[in-house]
Amino acid sequence: MYKIVSIPGDGIGPEVVAGAVSVLEQLSRKHGFEIVIEEHPFGGASWELHGEMLTQATLDACRNCDAVLLGAVGGPKWESLPHEHKPEAALLKIRKELQLFANLRPAKVYDALIDASSLKADVVRGTDFLVFRELTGGIYFGQPRGFDENRGWNTMVYERYEVERIARLAFETARKRKGKVVSIDKANVLEVSQLWRNVVHELHKEFADVELSDMYVDNAAMQIVRNPKQFDVIVTSNLFGDILSDIAGMITGSLGMLPSASIGTKYALYEPIHGSAPDIASQNKANPIATIASVAMMFEHSFKVPEIAREIEQAIESALASGCRTADIANTGDRVISTTEMTEAIVRHL
Amino acid sequence: MYKIVSIPGDGIGPEVVAGAVSVLEQLSRKHGFEIVIEEHPFGGASWELHGEMLTQATLDACRNCDAVLLGAVGGPKWESLPHEHKPEAALLKIRKELQLFANLRPAKVYDALIDASSLKADVVRGTDFLVFRELTGGIYFGQPRGFDENRGWNTMVYERYEVERIARLAFETARKRKGKVVSIDKANVLEVSQLWRNVVHELHKEFADVELSDMYVDNAAMQIVRNPKQFDVIVTSNLFGDILSDIAGMITGSLGMLPSASIGTKYALYEPIHGSAPDIASQNKANPIATIASVAMMFEHSFKVPEIAREIEQAIESALASGCRTADIANTGDRVISTTEMTEAIVRHL
Ligand SMILES: CC(C)[C@H](C(=O)O)[C@@H](O)C(=O)O
Ligand SMILES: CC(C)[C@H](C(=O)O)[C@@H](O)C(=O)O
Repeated sequence: MYKIVSIPGDGIGPEVVAGAVSVLEQLSRKHGFEIVIEEHPFGGASWELHGEMLTQATLDACRNCDAVLLGAVGGPKWESLPHEHKPEAALLKIRKELQLFANLRPAKVYDALIDASSLKADVVRGTDFLVFRELTGGIYFGQPRGFDENRGWNTMVYERYEVERIARLAFETARKRKGKVVSIDKANVLEVSQLWRNVVHELHKEFADVELSDMYVDNAAMQIVRNPKQFDVIVTSNLFGDILSDIAGMITGSLGMLPSASIGTKYALYEPIHGSAPDIASQNKANPIATIASVAMMFEHSFKVPEIAREIEQAIESALASGCRTADIANTGDRVISTTEMTEAIVRHL
Repeated sequence: MYKIVSIPGDGIGPEVVAGAVSVLEQLSRKHGFEIVIEEHPFGGASWELHGEMLTQATLDACRNCDAVLLGAVGGPKWESLPHEHKPEAALLKIRKELQLFANLRPAKVYDALIDASSLKADVVRGTDFLVFRELTGGIYFGQPRGFDENRGWNTMVYERYEVERIARLAFETARKRKGKVVSIDKANVLEVSQLWRNVVHELHKEFADVELSDMYVDNAAMQIVRNPKQFDVIVTSNLFGDILSDIAGMITGSLGMLPSASIGTKYALYEPIHGSAPDIASQNKANPIATIASVAMMFEHSFKVPEIAREIEQAIESALASGCRTADIANTGDRVISTTEMTEAIVRHL
């Protein structure tokens, strides 16, 4: 029995989460396990109901389940709220409260969509790497921080244990993949990166079978664009990971199709990397694939049933191969299908 | 009369600077102005002579001229020096001492080399934007900073005047270009970015004819890869500029060909963006174009003779169009020429 808390959120969130729920139901029928899904408000939807983006009740629910499935948050309606009430603040809060210290983002190319990349097909074809972004430390949470009329300041800080736990995950995962970790920092300028680098290299002694190399963040950004196939596992800090994982997603040409997992020692949250796309909300137009692929990550990382993760990924690829295209991935001449039709196609392939 | 201090530095630095000097001499003959070039050691070359990467004598010389021309610094020989003696430290020191607060890096595509880009030709063709990176503030220089066994910390800090002076340059330059500035920050997370954004918008009142928009750094990194043609002038902080200007260079496919200018109120320094390439040093193989293009930026920004800048750029394009290719930009079947041959070709076209 798996207990999942779904927090559909705003914009297209509810529609893509509904697609993922259909997939979960089909898997439950097929494999005979029970799935309980409990829905809670988050983001703007929660603000409208409770005057808070993230209520204690939603947080408590997230702490009382096997995995959280998030749709998307935010929209023009809540952009002018004071900073501490913005959807972004709620995102940072849920990460911190659940101690989701590792954000995993696969950069994987869907062959059927390779032409959507701005990079040459030869450069991206076969790209398959995984970014481990530290998610609860660094400059996102460092103190002191603030600004006044004439000055603004933030602190980029890492503690040894914070670096160690994310690096450990990266090494462990690399072992099950191609055995290569690239740790990305700016150790030629920043002391916080020197600590990062030292800790990663000390830990590496426990993982001598894994190949470790270091790369400066400016060079890494270039290398992802120049030759993404060189990477297997990337591990990096919160801010660098924010930038690099977005580049990684972009070059695949499948930005709207990519899932993510944010995991900690106790809790885990899965979500598509795309936003809430308010312009197409409630029109049954959104592409549910990224959210469905996030469910695959859930089976892999939370439920430890990689076979089912592969089944879901396979069903997505089959639906794509059979020509299914929502508007965001359609070419001229393609028949465009709806969110529910795409969901049904994937369910059929399961 | 122009007085130029040349600091050739390490690796291929002396060879590419020699190329630039030939171009300067030809311009002096052609236009009848006098050029005095004073050479000083810097980087590893200076370390070997004086046990210091940047001597007071070299610094003084840089303060007593109309412009500085830098080749490249660093190499394996000096990589294991303690941090404060590394070539990188000397680079940061010269920037800070000369108060070179603005680093300008054009992202311009050479049509003859467009196929070298990992991006599709259609995506990059016509790309022509300019990155203004703040160069003497932010997390590169912020205090407190340090690391010990268990913790590392740096401070990202900006003062109002630091943001204002770089933003002013960006607005002024945009006026002479397509009139569009994109300011890049991470104001949804960082207070220092909120200060940045506020100052840029306040200053914008003086430049109401220029179009200003804001972009988050993660999105900006993607947008440069997705559609680089959308940009005209980018202005951003030191760390974000380090990453973004490298992406910008990479997508043009001409990374080894791009110049840069680092300017302040009193002094200015020009250098190719490529490194010292120790593997091909002293072999008369290096491509001198980036350094020669840096001389073009010198005429534009320090000497205020944009016509001569255009002449140099034109000569480079003509040499390329006539098929001149050093090894780094040669395709199979091309006749590869040397550093001195490429220089001569460009000089001939002047
Ligand atoms: C919305 C923003 C706070 C967030 C971040 O910077 O972490 C987003 O960019 C992300 O990557 O999830
Ligand atoms: C070498 C390093 C200190 C430097 C920087 O980060 O500024 C380099 O990457 C650059 O962009 O000039």
